[in-house]
Amino acid sequence: MNFSQTAESLLDRVLKGETRAMARMMSFAESSRDDHRVHLGSLYKYAGHAHVVGLTGVPGSGKSTLARCITLALRETGKRVGIVAVDPSSPFSGGAILGDRVRMGDLATDSGVFIRSLATRGSLGGLARAALDTADIMDAAGFDIVLIETVGVGQDEIDIATAAHTVIVTSAPGLGDGIQAIKAGVLEIADVHVVAKSDRPDAERTLGDLNAMLNLGLAGRGLSEWAVPVIATSAETGDGVYDLVRLIDEHFSHLKQSGELFARRKKIAEMRVLKAAEDIVRERIQLNCGDEIGPIFNDVFQRKIDPLTAAKMVLKRLNLVE
Amino acid sequence: MNFSQTAESLLDRVLKGETRAMARMMSFAESSRDDHRVHLGSLYKYAGHAHVVGLTGVPGSGKSTLARCITLALRETGKRVGIVAVDPSSPFSGGAILGDRVRMGDLATDSGVFIRSLATRGSLGGLARAALDTADIMDAAGFDIVLIETVGVGQDEIDIATAAHTVIVTSAPGLGDGIQAIKAGVLEIADVHVVAKSDRPDAERTLGDLNAMLNLGLAGRGLSEWAVPVIATSAETGDGVYDLVRLIDEHFSHLKQSGELFARRKKIAEMRVLKAAEDIVRERIQLNCGDEIGPIFNDVFQRKIDPLTAAKMVLKRLNLVE
Repeated sequence: MNFSQTAESLLDRVLKGETRAMARMMSFAESSRDDHRVHLGSLYKYAGHAHVVGLTGVPGSGKSTLARCITLALRETGKRVGIVAVDPSSPFSGGAILGDRVRMGDLATDSGVFIRSLATRGSLGGLARAALDTADIMDAAGFDIVLIETVGVGQDEIDIATAAHTVIVTSAPGLGDGIQAIKAGVLEIADVHVVAKSDRPDAERTLGDLNAMLNLGLAGRGLSEWAVPVIATSAETGDGVYDLVRLIDEHFSHLKQSGELFARRKKIAEMRVLKAAEDIVRERIQLNCGDEIGPIFNDVFQRKIDPLTAAKMVLKRLNLVE
Repeated sequence: MNFSQTAESLLDRVLKGETRAMARMMSFAESSRDDHRVHLGSLYKYAGHAHVVGLTGVPGSGKSTLARCITLALRETGKRVGIVAVDPSSPFSGGAILGDRVRMGDLATDSGVFIRSLATRGSLGGLARAALDTADIMDAAGFDIVLIETVGVGQDEIDIATAAHTVIVTSAPGLGDGIQAIKAGVLEIADVHVVAKSDRPDAERTLGDLNAMLNLGLAGRGLSEWAVPVIATSAETGDGVYDLVRLIDEHFSHLKQSGELFARRKKIAEMRVLKAAEDIVRERIQLNCGDEIGPIFNDVFQRKIDPLTAAKMVLKRLNLVE
């Protein structure tokens, strides 16, 4: 069996939604090997159908529990749901120090749900690419909705969130000084605001804060006809979950009807090319840092030359600029 | 007056510690203009003397208040302290929605303290470079200690934190489920763990959790002779603050005596060159994305070609690879 046959059959199996093939393809999405990535290249054109929903908020804001609630509600309508967890503090992640993976148990046995968590520790870059390739795999495999869960701080995390069609930002009452989550820099990317854990006594204050911020024009994406809603949900009582699912759907319809989906998809494509280009350059440098460009690194270490000058020299030495 | 004279005189003024010159140079650190960056290139060789301390932890973990306490304690010994706030939720940041900038008032009027906050929103990359260049400016201007405050999640933020000689990770009791901050992926980069807000009743549990994680080998950098300490501090009572300042100093002595400082500085230099190279490539692409490579972006948008293939085409088109 030659290589291209293997590649073709793996892709075929992914397109049929075979779980093991999807998992294998996802391990390629996190790989830096060219012969692994070629698989993702072939898959790319089959994606583009799913509704990609970003779910973001600081640790403790209840987004993992909310992801679970949304998924259960979507499953009642027969939709297939993929979850990409980029947040290392997520119970979806392998980390699961406190064993809270258990809480997700009822999703893990449902063949209409596919959960994949991405390691974010220690990796220098490549995270956005891996996350969006993983979403593409679920998309190409016929999953209707792909939830990408990220911790809403950090440039890579915000880039990933904005690569979704619909961005949900979660805040929780009682987290730090109430408005902490709001200040963390993700307000502006929200299409829908959720105050999770709304059964808590101080939820009203968080709702009020968010609405006030929206009225000040500080809490949603500008230049859109979409009025960013604030909705309270509770995993305890189930309040608000179905409303949220309806809002997510309404937002997608709005994007399609207004033509905004076109513009967003264009921006996402550009961002992905940019990230891939950065990855290529970084990997070329890391591969060659031993002999070829080691002395340049050393001069920077000794503060004989500055990092920018060194970077130009490195790019030239590696034939990356003329 | 020609350009090189201006450059020289600005640098001279920075080296003398003139506040306005420093502020101007810092605006260049956040700029993408070549004629601005050249100033940072000339400054680089004058830095490398300060003790750079990273202070990281999720929003609400008390790191800004701790930064203030550390700074006040260091000022009593006559040391000059620079603060680079990369966290958009920090009260040091211009954001200061709730006016908590006021709390920092007593630092703002002290000429031995220089505070600079960096905008992290919306920028696609360049954050690590700007933060470390800003630290260099304080360093070259003769500040003894530079505190870099980052929210401890996100790849860029973790890269910035690990570019410090000493990394302090803050956790706070009562934040989410207590161990939330621990799970967010910054445990491994800590040289010193701080449980802030130790006057709170549930602080003991957080201390216990952290010590347990350390004993499991999960909560500190490996391969070091340095035993990562866990220390409780309270901004209310002042408890632990002087001990922490002493520990920070001890860690720096350890780095110097063990030779680890050499290894860390080498790694930091490499990381900075890598980031600069990525910045160059990204900027080249963004500058030319109109006519030259617009059609390539468009093909990705239409899913005719995948992002990685497109990135290779773009790099070639812009003469960035042979």
